Amino acid sequence: MNHNNKYDTNLHQRPANYEALTPISFLERSAAVYPDKVAVIHGDVEFTYRQFYQRTRQLASALNKAGIGIGDTVSIMAPNIPAMLEAHFGVPMAGATLNALNYRLDAASIRFILEHAETKVLISDREYSSTVADAIQGLDSPPIVIDIDDPQFVGGDLIGQVEYETFISTGDPNYHYGRPESEWDAISLCYTSGTTGNPKGVVSHHRGAYLNALGQLLVFGVDANSRYLWTLPMFHCNGWTFTWGITAAGGTHVCLRKIDPALVFKIIKGHKITHMCGAPIVLTMLIHAPDDAKLCFDQPVDVATGGAAPPSQVIQNMEDIGFRVTHLYGLTETYGPATVCAWQPHWETLDPDSRTRQMARQGVGYHTMEAVMVADSQNMKPVPSDGETLGEIMVRGNTVMKGYLKNPRASEEAFRGGWFHTGDLAVCHPDGYIEIKDRAKDIIISGGENISSLEIEETLYKHPEIMEAAVVAKNDEKWGETPCAFVTLKPGASDVSADDIIQWCRNNVARFKVPKLVVFGELPKTSTGKIQKFALRERANKL
Amino acid sequence: MNHNNKYDTNLHQRPANYEALTPISFLERSAAVYPDKVAVIHGDVEFTYRQFYQRTRQLASALNKAGIGIGDTVSIMAPNIPAMLEAHFGVPMAGATLNALNYRLDAASIRFILEHAETKVLISDREYSSTVADAIQGLDSPPIVIDIDDPQFVGGDLIGQVEYETFISTGDPNYHYGRPESEWDAISLCYTSGTTGNPKGVVSHHRGAYLNALGQLLVFGVDANSRYLWTLPMFHCNGWTFTWGITAAGGTHVCLRKIDPALVFKIIKGHKITHMCGAPIVLTMLIHAPDDAKLCFDQPVDVATGGAAPPSQVIQNMEDIGFRVTHLYGLTETYGPATVCAWQPHWETLDPDSRTRQMARQGVGYHTMEAVMVADSQNMKPVPSDGETLGEIMVRGNTVMKGYLKNPRASEEAFRGGWFHTGDLAVCHPDGYIEIKDRAKDIIISGGENISSLEIEETLYKHPEIMEAAVVAKNDEKWGETPCAFVTLKPGASDVSADDIIQWCRNNVARFKVPKLVVFGELPKTSTGKIQKFALRERANKL
Repeated sequence: MNHNNKYDTNLHQRPANYEALTPISFLERSAAVYPDKVAVIHGDVEFTYRQFYQRTRQLASALNKAGIGIGDTVSIMAPNIPAMLEAHFGVPMAGATLNALNYRLDAASIRFILEHAETKVLISDREYSSTVADAIQGLDSPPIVIDIDDPQFVGGDLIGQVEYETFISTGDPNYHYGRPESEWDAISLCYTSGTTGNPKGVVSHHRGAYLNALGQLLVFGVDANSRYLWTLPMFHCNGWTFTWGITAAGGTHVCLRKIDPALVFKIIKGHKITHMCGAPIVLTMLIHAPDDAKLCFDQPVDVATGGAAPPSQVIQNMEDIGFRVTHLYGLTETYGPATVCAWQPHWETLDPDSRTRQMARQGVGYHTMEAVMVADSQNMKPVPSDGETLGEIMVRGNTVMKGYLKNPRASEEAFRGGWFHTGDLAVCHPDGYIEIKDRAKDIIISGGENISSLEIEETLYKHPEIMEAAVVAKNDEKWGETPCAFVTLKPGASDVSADDIIQWCRNNVARFKVPKLVVFGELPKTSTGKIQKFALRERANKL
Repeated sequence: MNHNNKYDTNLHQRPANYEALTPISFLERSAAVYPDKVAVIHGDVEFTYRQFYQRTRQLASALNKAGIGIGDTVSIMAPNIPAMLEAHFGVPMAGATLNALNYRLDAASIRFILEHAETKVLISDREYSSTVADAIQGLDSPPIVIDIDDPQFVGGDLIGQVEYETFISTGDPNYHYGRPESEWDAISLCYTSGTTGNPKGVVSHHRGAYLNALGQLLVFGVDANSRYLWTLPMFHCNGWTFTWGITAAGGTHVCLRKIDPALVFKIIKGHKITHMCGAPIVLTMLIHAPDDAKLCFDQPVDVATGGAAPPSQVIQNMEDIGFRVTHLYGLTETYGPATVCAWQPHWETLDPDSRTRQMARQGVGYHTMEAVMVADSQNMKPVPSDGETLGEIMVRGNTVMKGYLKNPRASEEAFRGGWFHTGDLAVCHPDGYIEIKDRAKDIIISGGENISSLEIEETLYKHPEIMEAAVVAKNDEKWGETPCAFVTLKPGASDVSADDIIQWCRNNVARFKVPKLVVFGELPKTSTGKIQKFALRERANKL
């Protein structure tokens, strides 16, 4: 650090030229620059930036009064409503760490998280009162429970000690909250959905949250004129840091308790939405909405998708109904998106099919991510950029988590060799764009050949009658594993047999990749819209 | 830093999740994402991002081979040409600090800077060979001089040990350069123009350069499709960090050796320029270009102006010829712009005059600047937001310099009270926007009343025959000081007398503010286009 040279003499950090990076700054700025602008819309309720900032200061003040501060966890179980946004600022302003819970989890999982996170305060929406009541029953150190009593939801019970509006009304709207002592301080704790075993607690820091939020604005073209619809759960990596990012831009957050395609189209049109995000499943819901729900809108609407690879057909269908799609890739460990399939001008000239196949790639690192590579996970050497050699996606930079809470073994394993190991298998194309072939555990190895389940799914999604598809490995005495397809047909689809679908695959992929078995029915999903392949694998092996 | 809590246990910084922020990352990314895209255009010469990156690696490699590294200064005396851009990356890649020289300075000033900066290498364009030769003659430790032999300039001599292209050809295009050990390391050294006494050396760090460059992209709406024309000298605060910012976005730099209005219009049209910057004087040159030079262009062109307050008439005139103006304010000590006159939607409804007066305000802090205030410089208390009370503009944040090189007294003075003191006097309007009334030393105090020279200049700029105006204090026995106006008339202006102009002022400003004296002629300017008021003050006091 100190080179003993003239450039390090009497030129130290001071209050005037050094401040810990934190997304709290973003709200401070937008409240100063756009005090009377609508910051948050929730049904008929609107908060200006002045009010948004005051409410978060009240929350911070009330939390500090309640004895919550540095090192404490505040958990929240809420849909995309103002209280959830406010927690993203008020909790860090109180010096505490925000743990946004996945509201689709069961009581046992929530209980595990509350105990592991040592939650001191739990803010909880009435909608989830029964799960939460079960989760906290008999806990050794039960948290203070604050009920959110949102009139937009009917049902559930108030089960806590105090109601949210009452709680924050005890706080000072001009509160002089503390700033993080270090930008490395923990701002949030998100638990991975954990397809096997107990979930891991991903700890994020203020520095990374600040940088990733700015990176999002650059990648997704968000500015003060943007109107962002919350179709992505905020509990999912803090809404991919858009909770902080939209606020930084001084845009408008439009809340949404639940994805109802007809309501989504109505809000897009009525509130002139410009940006939204969601897993491919959200896009699929919009594409397959009833025709009379699909309202036309005049403004361009940018949709960022990620969390799972979007089949190129889904991109094409979204374009057909008026959306512009950007494909992002990342994990909870990388504050949500870490790569973007950055548009290249020459793609304009490609035919629609080639173009959407390009757009379905995971792409290149964010401005704010230092490096991304596809490498051999043993020797850490990058694979050749030939579009064929499989390797693991690894990333490195300031928008990678601090590590897993109280799990040094998992942290060391994830960070071995100086890179974060994503567990996703990909190729690197000659243009440097990466493309996921599978989760490490989702690859199918048949007769010694690697089969990408994603490739077969791509083919299935192109079948005119198929709405959703997932392909998993089924154990096989002869081949080791063979592909087994699970498909959901479109509403009102014509009669299609398993043989028809197998024939469709034969016409489109190499023979050894063709599923041996096709199963019809609804697909099990995680709370973030990812298809639960582990459940399908179990099912496949019982067939 | 260590709270001894669970969020700081086994969750330390590691290579996977922590890297010093540096603009070097931006070029690495753009070279990876857009290798074949044109990064830099200079006349008929074009470099792709792959070539741009290779050339900077060659420069870093050649500098390291020449023994240059951490703690060393590399100075450059060059107009806006590729070598200048390359130095902004190659010099920091070599671990050294870049000192871009103001090419309008005389030999004595250059000599002072080379000695003060302890320059080891001086890269110098043939155009300035006579100044440079004088400056280095007889130096105790003369730098290695590298000549830039740009075919676009005719004249001057090669005076150095080696020519630039020959020098970098000794470097490795795949060189594994070092990264800064700390983001607090010095990336650049810029000398203030120094209206009195010796110039001060402003030391900037990698962290601030990275953040300010990203802030610029957000404020100015720059993205990968942007084509940026270099009408702003790169030596001026590293081109307001756009040297790094345009590279971060993956946009295209279009070089320009010298401001020739006809050429500027030709390039705007021919290269489909989308963004450019310049002091108000550059705008004035475009406005007053001959009609046949003013080509029409189809694309929207955003012009950011700063370095001096733009008269609202200049904003209006620029809009009339097809530009969109953004007003930025800052200093060398803040990496160039620190505030922006952020657009407010309700300004749409204002009449043109009110609107351009709003736009001429200095505005609000950047996303990446922590705080801006107008305060009493003695007690550090913010002045009321009444649009009337004068105070000094102060800023605080990560985009403020490390301090002045080898000048701890000046650093302490500038940073007193935990804020950087700009020396600019301003008011804060009720909407939080700041507006400069004058440099602290430019305010005119007449009969105990403060008179803003800018206000009178605003009035003069509205006179149909005046092209440029500056008002300074002239000592006066009775009043202490009185305003004295210096004006340049438009080419082909009709006969206007001093009395006419005084009458114009009487009709438009309070009586005590009316200049007692009006002087016609060309105005002396600093190298960055600022009118040299100190020179005018001297002149006024001799009248």
